[in-house]
Amino acid sequence: MSTITFFHNPMSRGQIARWALEEVGAEYEVVPVAWDAKPQALIDVNPMGKIPTIVHHAADGDRTVTEGAAICHYLAEIHPEAGLLPTDREKADYFRWLFFAAGPVEQAVTGKAMGFAPTSEQEGMAGFGNFDRTVDTLEWWLDSHDYVCGDRFTMADVYVGSAVDWGLMFGTLPERPSFTAYATRLRARRAYRRGKELDGMAGGAA
Amino acid sequence: MSTITFFHNPMSRGQIARWALEEVGAEYEVVPVAWDAKPQALIDVNPMGKIPTIVHHAADGDRTVTEGAAICHYLAEIHPEAGLLPTDREKADYFRWLFFAAGPVEQAVTGKAMGFAPTSEQEGMAGFGNFDRTVDTLEWWLDSHDYVCGDRFTMADVYVGSAVDWGLMFGTLPERPSFTAYATRLRARRAYRRGKELDGMAGGAA
Repeated sequence: MSTITFFHNPMSRGQIARWALEEVGAEYEVVPVAWDAKPQALIDVNPMGKIPTIVHHAADGDRTVTEGAAICHYLAEIHPEAGLLPTDREKADYFRWLFFAAGPVEQAVTGKAMGFAPTSEQEGMAGFGNFDRTVDTLEWWLDSHDYVCGDRFTMADVYVGSAVDWGLMFGTLPERPSFTAYATRLRARRAYRRGKELDGMAGGAA
Repeated sequence: MSTITFFHNPMSRGQIARWALEEVGAEYEVVPVAWDAKPQALIDVNPMGKIPTIVHHAADGDRTVTEGAAICHYLAEIHPEAGLLPTDREKADYFRWLFFAAGPVEQAVTGKAMGFAPTSEQEGMAGFGNFDRTVDTLEWWLDSHDYVCGDRFTMADVYVGSAVDWGLMFGTLPERPSFTAYATRLRARRAYRRGKELDGMAGGAA
C-alpha cells in the first residue's frame, strides 16, 4: 500500500492536491472519484464526499485530511525534506496568506461566480468585505513579493498560486500584472507541469 | 512596547483573537478600532482594514498576521510553552478542521445570514456544497470527539469553537447536542472567560 491514498477527480480542486503531492515527492495512489458515484471509502472518512481528500497511512494509524489548503500544509509537514515549510521568520506571511486564500479569496471568487455579492450593509458581516477589496489586497502583496513569503517558494504558493492560476484561466480574477507574473513563475515549476501532465491537463495553462 | 499590537473591536471577530491571546498568555497592547475611523497604522499593514489584525514585534522585525484562524495558529507557534500546537499525530485533524471552519463553515454561515444559498447546480462549485452538508459534517466530527484533535484542547478549538459558540449565540447554527456540549466545555475555560470580561462581554454566552 502506498503511504497516501488520494481521492481525486482531475476536473476539480483535486489538481491543487496533485500539485502539492508532486512538490513533496509523495508516494501516493489515486482513487478516481466520479461525481455521481462516490466510493464508500471516501464517504467513510469524509461524509461530505468532497475532493480532494487524502488518507495518510502513518505507522500508528490512518489520518484523513480534507480541504485543499490543509492538505497542502499537511504534506509539507510530513515531508520536511522538501523544504516547503515556513521558517520562523516566514510563518506570519505563510499562514496569513494561506488563510486569506482559503477564506476571503475563495468566498469572494466563488460568490461572484455564483452571482452573489454582499450589499454595502452586509460588507461588515462578510469576512471578505467585497470582491474588489479582496482582490486589491492580494494584488498589493504580490506587487512587492515574488512569492507568499518573499523571495522563496513555499507550500503556501501551491494553494495561493492555484487560486491565482485558476482565477486567470477561468476569468474569475481580473488580469493584473502581478497576478500574471506570479502565475508565470509558478507554471514553470517541474511539479506543477508534472501534475498537469498526470491529470491530462498539460498545455491548458501554458 | 508590548510584544504584540492587537487591532481590535470587541463587537467583531476580534473576540476570537482576544481569546487566543489570553490562551497563550501573550503580552499585548490593544489598539481600539472604530468602524468609521480606521487607524493609519492598521491600513499600512492591512489595506483591507480588517480586524482582527496583529503585529508581532519580533527581535528581527515586525510581522503582521491577519485572518482569525491564522492569528490563532501563529500565536500557538510563537508560544509553544502554552502547549496548544498539535503533536505529529494531531496535525491532520488540527489543520483539517481549522481550514474547514475558516472555509466551508464561514462561507455557509455568513452566506446564509446574508440570504445566499447556492442552487443545486452550483453546489459542486461551492467548496462548502450547501449549508446542511457543512453543518452535518461538523456535527459528525463533534459527535465522536470532545475537541478537534480528540480528547485534548488545542488552538484549533479556539477558532472552530468560536464558530460554534457564535453560531449558537446568534442562531446562525442549528442547536445540536454535540454543538451545545462542545460550546459548554469551551465556555468553562479561564482564558475564554477572561477574554469576554476584558471585552465587556462577560455573561453574554453563559
